[in-house]
Amino acid sequence: MTRNYSHVYTHTYRLTAAQCNAQSELAPAMLVQQIIEVSTEHADLLGIGFERLRHDDNLWVLSRIAFEMKRYPRLLEHYSLSTWIEGYNRHFSERNFEIRGEGGEVLGYARTVWFSINMTTRRPANLESITEIARTISDHPCPIERQGKIRPVNPPQTVHNYTFMLSDIDVNRHVNSARYVELILNQFTLDTFDECFLSRFEIEYKHECHFGKQVEVCSAFDRDATVTAIMLADTPICLARSILTMRDKKLSFDNQ
Amino acid sequence: MTRNYSHVYTHTYRLTAAQCNAQSELAPAMLVQQIIEVSTEHADLLGIGFERLRHDDNLWVLSRIAFEMKRYPRLLEHYSLSTWIEGYNRHFSERNFEIRGEGGEVLGYARTVWFSINMTTRRPANLESITEIARTISDHPCPIERQGKIRPVNPPQTVHNYTFMLSDIDVNRHVNSARYVELILNQFTLDTFDECFLSRFEIEYKHECHFGKQVEVCSAFDRDATVTAIMLADTPICLARSILTMRDKKLSFDNQ
Repeated sequence: MTRNYSHVYTHTYRLTAAQCNAQSELAPAMLVQQIIEVSTEHADLLGIGFERLRHDDNLWVLSRIAFEMKRYPRLLEHYSLSTWIEGYNRHFSERNFEIRGEGGEVLGYARTVWFSINMTTRRPANLESITEIARTISDHPCPIERQGKIRPVNPPQTVHNYTFMLSDIDVNRHVNSARYVELILNQFTLDTFDECFLSRFEIEYKHECHFGKQVEVCSAFDRDATVTAIMLADTPICLARSILTMRDKKLSFDNQ
Repeated sequence: MTRNYSHVYTHTYRLTAAQCNAQSELAPAMLVQQIIEVSTEHADLLGIGFERLRHDDNLWVLSRIAFEMKRYPRLLEHYSLSTWIEGYNRHFSERNFEIRGEGGEVLGYARTVWFSINMTTRRPANLESITEIARTISDHPCPIERQGKIRPVNPPQTVHNYTFMLSDIDVNRHVNSARYVELILNQFTLDTFDECFLSRFEIEYKHECHFGKQVEVCSAFDRDATVTAIMLADTPICLARSILTMRDKKLSFDNQ
């Protein structure tokens, strides 16, 4: 089988002390911020970024992220995020990622799903008009499972209240996508993250949330994962599944 | 007068959308993170970084930051932080910064004060043994005032409770220095930051704080500034003065 591996874009980073979490690693929320950053850069380079969509009065909206890591980049490590478009249809586009550490070691993979909506109506736009996407598809492998449906557990086992403040709001005047990841992982203790690491994470962004809104962050352990719902009264803002693995357990990817 | 402008280190950045705040600018807390980042890089280059201090069982501790900005770097703008050491004595070292925007426009200046403490005793170390600092002094001008003493206002006008969670802890296992800045500015509303910007900010880090601790963020308006104290019971963790200026007001630096 011939594979088309072109149209892969790579951004290289070095993890500084100021960016590290308590475990001297790249924090999962910072990984999410960099996934968004690299997506934006690549879409702009391909001519299918926010500028192109604005032409039709549309914009990109991040709907889902799933990632699996066998370990996270460490303090002072050079690491890279490579991204490519796996496919698209009229409703959404699928963009994948490969995260590599020093010396090219594969540390993990991510899958993201992006919708396009109309800026005025806030209704889904038809991606078929963006014909430029067709020539950007890559067959680069992404050997992690697609995200499953996330069902909140009722009643939750832990609930925290949080009111969104100035520092939580991003350039779109909504709550920052990476900030939700921090609130979700804040349901865990420091001891838990010293013993375990986040080996798989899935998040589904359901509704936008704004400055001053008070939400409940509700979590419950369900089979192998912690399921978290951030709720604005009865409206789910986002849903997440977090799988933690003991740090001494060795993980690998099948198709590496 | 002959000025020694060597020993100035510059790091260039570009402000991505994912890093912007709600005003499409570099957030003050991110500026503080980058001030720490660039300080670390420069000290390492000069051979007076954490590695050198560890040799004597000491470490650097950031004690104070004061900065003045006439505006903040904007979305997609290339900007730079230049840093140099103004002076040192046996107790502390003073490191300054110049922040420039696209085309070299001076956007602001910062002053920082760093102590060294012994890792074991947590007592102040004597910087005179780090003779390497002497040959790194620069006369580069920094036309903003030194930080004054910050006195908390009692009783405060607004108080928020906050418990430090997983995402607030940094590589030293303390609360992240930039996170305090977010909590302090979270005392303001989004509307306030749409109308005004933080033209001068001073922070004094008094005590380390840890995971799970619940603090009170206490603010009061005093003459031209908002004075904020982050208190762990009766112990001040940090003190800050924030001066906001209307966005349409033009500011300049005398010695530019």
